Amino acid sequence: MASRNERAAIVSIGDELTIGQSLDTNSKWLSERLTEIGLTVVEHVTVPDDREWLGATLRRLCEACATVVVSGGLGPTADDLTRESLADVLNEPLDEDGDSLRAIEAWFARSSREMPRQNRVQALRPRSGVHIPNPNGTAPGVHVTVLGAAVFCLPGPPSEMRPMFEAYVRARVSPPEGRLIRTRVFQTMGVGESEIAQRLGGLMARDRNPLVGTTASAGMVSVRIRYEGSESAERVDRLMAETAADVERLVGDVVFAEGGRPLADVVIDRLRRAGQRVATVESCTGGMLGGAMTALAGSSDVYLGGWVTYSNEMKGWLVGVGHDLLERHGAVSEEVAAAMAVGGLERSGADHCLAITGVAGPGGGTPEKPVGTVWVGMASRGVGEAGGVECRRFLMRGERETVRQWSVTSALAMLDLRLRGRSELKLLRQQAP
Amino acid sequence: MASRNERAAIVSIGDELTIGQSLDTNSKWLSERLTEIGLTVVEHVTVPDDREWLGATLRRLCEACATVVVSGGLGPTADDLTRESLADVLNEPLDEDGDSLRAIEAWFARSSREMPRQNRVQALRPRSGVHIPNPNGTAPGVHVTVLGAAVFCLPGPPSEMRPMFEAYVRARVSPPEGRLIRTRVFQTMGVGESEIAQRLGGLMARDRNPLVGTTASAGMVSVRIRYEGSESAERVDRLMAETAADVERLVGDVVFAEGGRPLADVVIDRLRRAGQRVATVESCTGGMLGGAMTALAGSSDVYLGGWVTYSNEMKGWLVGVGHDLLERHGAVSEEVAAAMAVGGLERSGADHCLAITGVAGPGGGTPEKPVGTVWVGMASRGVGEAGGVECRRFLMRGERETVRQWSVTSALAMLDLRLRGRSELKLLRQQAP
Repeated sequence: MASRNERAAIVSIGDELTIGQSLDTNSKWLSERLTEIGLTVVEHVTVPDDREWLGATLRRLCEACATVVVSGGLGPTADDLTRESLADVLNEPLDEDGDSLRAIEAWFARSSREMPRQNRVQALRPRSGVHIPNPNGTAPGVHVTVLGAAVFCLPGPPSEMRPMFEAYVRARVSPPEGRLIRTRVFQTMGVGESEIAQRLGGLMARDRNPLVGTTASAGMVSVRIRYEGSESAERVDRLMAETAADVERLVGDVVFAEGGRPLADVVIDRLRRAGQRVATVESCTGGMLGGAMTALAGSSDVYLGGWVTYSNEMKGWLVGVGHDLLERHGAVSEEVAAAMAVGGLERSGADHCLAITGVAGPGGGTPEKPVGTVWVGMASRGVGEAGGVECRRFLMRGERETVRQWSVTSALAMLDLRLRGRSELKLLRQQAP
Repeated sequence: MASRNERAAIVSIGDELTIGQSLDTNSKWLSERLTEIGLTVVEHVTVPDDREWLGATLRRLCEACATVVVSGGLGPTADDLTRESLADVLNEPLDEDGDSLRAIEAWFARSSREMPRQNRVQALRPRSGVHIPNPNGTAPGVHVTVLGAAVFCLPGPPSEMRPMFEAYVRARVSPPEGRLIRTRVFQTMGVGESEIAQRLGGLMARDRNPLVGTTASAGMVSVRIRYEGSESAERVDRLMAETAADVERLVGDVVFAEGGRPLADVVIDRLRRAGQRVATVESCTGGMLGGAMTALAGSSDVYLGGWVTYSNEMKGWLVGVGHDLLERHGAVSEEVAAAMAVGGLERSGADHCLAITGVAGPGGGTPEKPVGTVWVGMASRGVGEAGGVECRRFLMRGERETVRQWSVTSALAMLDLRLRGRSELKLLRQQAP
C-alpha cells in the first residue's frame, strides 16, 4: 500500500446518492484522472447531506491521504453543506468572497436573469480557503489545506466539475518525486475469469510489481497490469514490457484489444482500416448498439446508421422481414435475425449489417425461448455465400438492462471476430442453436 | 442522524473501481433496496483489492452501523481478498464448505466444463460464517456477524449480486421496530435549482421531518421529501401528504412527474393513455433515444421504432431529407430537424415523431453552431397545421456524452409538454432560434 503522500481519496456528497436515487459517476472519472497523475486512490466515500458525518469523513481521509477531492454539496440550497463542514473541520468562519460574488452575479447577468437571493451563499468560503473558478455554473469550488492534506471541493454536476478539475486541480496535485504509476489493460473474450487466472498462474501473485489483476464484466474479462513505485523509468518500462509479453504469451489468443477502450471503438478502428462500413438493425436493444457505435466522435465514416425495428410492423416495413417469417418462427429466431441483417445490408449499402432480436425480459419468456435468449444476425458483402450471413444464439442471465448490454457486446464481438478472420471462435454465453 | 441500529453501510471492492476502470453501479442499487426496507444508508465506500485496507474499513463500518453489505472480491483469483479480510477481522480460519464446493462443481457440470482448480477457493468461508447461495455464478456469498453487525458479502457482477440480495439478504435485514422511512420524489423541468429552492423556502429547513431536498441533474431538478423516524404510520402518512401538498402548491407548475421514474416512462404512460404511438429519427444520439424508450419492458404498444440517420446519406435514403436542404442549411439546422421528424412521421404511421440532430462534440463546432448546439424536431398528426411541426434549439454545455443525454431528455420533454398541452413552456438550456 502506498504511503500517505502517494495516497488520494475521493468523496461524493448527497442524500440523492446514499438513498440510491442518483448514480455517482464522478468518483470513477476522478479516479481515472488521479491515477493518470500518479497517485494511488485508496478510497471513494459517498456520504449524505449531513454536516457532522461529512466533517468526520474529511478528518479521517485527510489524516490518511495527502490529497482529497470532494464533489457535491456546493449548491445554493439548505441541503448543500460542504462549505459549513469545511468551516467546522478547520474551526474557521465562512467569509464572503467579493470576486466570487461578482462572478456569480455576472453568470446570472449573462443569461439575463436576476440572481436569486439564495445563490449568495455560494460566494462563501472558509477563511483560509481560496475559490476555484467555475465557468459553467454558479458554484465556485474551494481549495483548502486540512491537517496538511490538499482538499479540493468541486460542484457535483459533471459538466461543471470536470472542466474545473482540468483547469485548476490537475496542475496542483502531483505524486512524490520519482513515483511512477503505469497501467496497461488487455481485454479478452471467449473464456471465463477462472480460466484466464489459471493460465496467468503465478503472474497474479499479490506481491509482484507490476501487479496483474483480472475483472469480469459484461461477458468480457480484462487483464490489468499495474506498476506503482519509484524505480527508474527505464526499469519500469522494461518490467511493464516483460509482464505484457508474459500476458500475451499466456492469454494472447483471446485478447481482442489493448487499453480500456470500448469494444465499439476497437471494431470501428478495424472497419476504418479495412475501408468498410456497417449498419445496424435493432429490436430488443432499441438503439443501444447505434448508441455505442456513436459514443466516440468521428465514427460517421464507418457507421452509417440503421433501423430500430422494435414493433413487428417496423421489422416488415423498414427492412422487409416477411410477415410469414414472423408468424412461423417468431420475432426472436434465427430466421428473423438473418432477414433483419440481410434487409439492413441491402437497404444501407454498408459492407456489414448487425441485427439483434431477443427476449430482454422481465416478461415474454417461454420454455423454448426463455428470458435472455438473444439472436444476433450478421450479414456481410463478399463473404462466402448468401451475403455471408451468420447467426448466433446467446442465452444471457440477468436483468433486462444486463441482457441488452450483453447483446450489444455480443453483436460487436461477432463482427470483431469476422474482421479478424476468427469466426470459428466461440463467444461466452453462446448456446448451440 | 440515525442511530447505529438504523444505519447501514455499503462497501464495493476492486482495483478496477479505485483506478477508475469500471463504474460502480452496485452501491446505488443496494442503497435503493436498503432505503426501501427502512434503513438509513450513511456511507458507500469503495476500496482497492487490499486485504488490510478492506479489513480496517470493515471494522470501522461495523462499529458505526448494524448492517453492512459488501460486493466484490469473491472471485476465484488471487486479487479476490474478501474471504481473507473477513477471516482477519474475525480472527478465524477459513474452512472449506462441502455444500458450496459441490454447488460450484455442479455449476461447471451444467455447462459441461471441468471445474478449474482455481475455483476451489470460492468454497472457503470464515468458520462462523454461512454461505449465501448463488444460482447465477460460482461465487457463494458470505453472511457473518462482525462486532455485532450483520455483514453480507456478495459477488460483484450485478446479475449475480441482485438476485442473491433479493433471495437471501432482504428477509434478514430490518429496521428497529416502529421505524419508518418514506420517500416521495417530484421531478421538475423548466426552472433552475435556486429558483426551486427560493420557492420552497422554509420547507427546506434541515431540522424538518419530513426533510425536503433538491438535486439538479441532466437539465431537471428533482424535489425529494423524506421522512425518517418512529412516529405512528398514520401521523407519518399525514405529514408526508401535507408536505407533498406544500411542494405541489409551490412548484407544481413545473412538476412533470412524481417518483424517480425516467422521463421516457412518464411519456410512454401518457402516450398509452392517449392511445398514441411514437417513432424516432436520431442523428447525433445514434439510437440513445430509442434505447431510453425501450429501457423498461412493455413499451412496444407505444414505441414503434425508428431510424438512426447518422450519416447524411442515411438522412436522405431513410427518411427523405433532401440533399439540397442538407447543402443549404447543414445537417444541424431547424430545416433538417423538421424534415427528419416529418419524414419519420410519414414513414412510420406513428402519431408523433421525434428527431434529433446536433453537434455533440468534441469536434465539429463552428462560431454559428458551437459544440452543444442541438435541434430537436417534433411532428404530430392532427396538431395544428403542417403536421404540428415544432423545432427547438438547445445549447448544452458539457462533454459529448452529457450533450447526447441532454438531447434525449430535451426531446422527451418536448413531447411531454405537447401531450400535456403545455408547449408554451420554455425548457432549460433552450435558446431562441
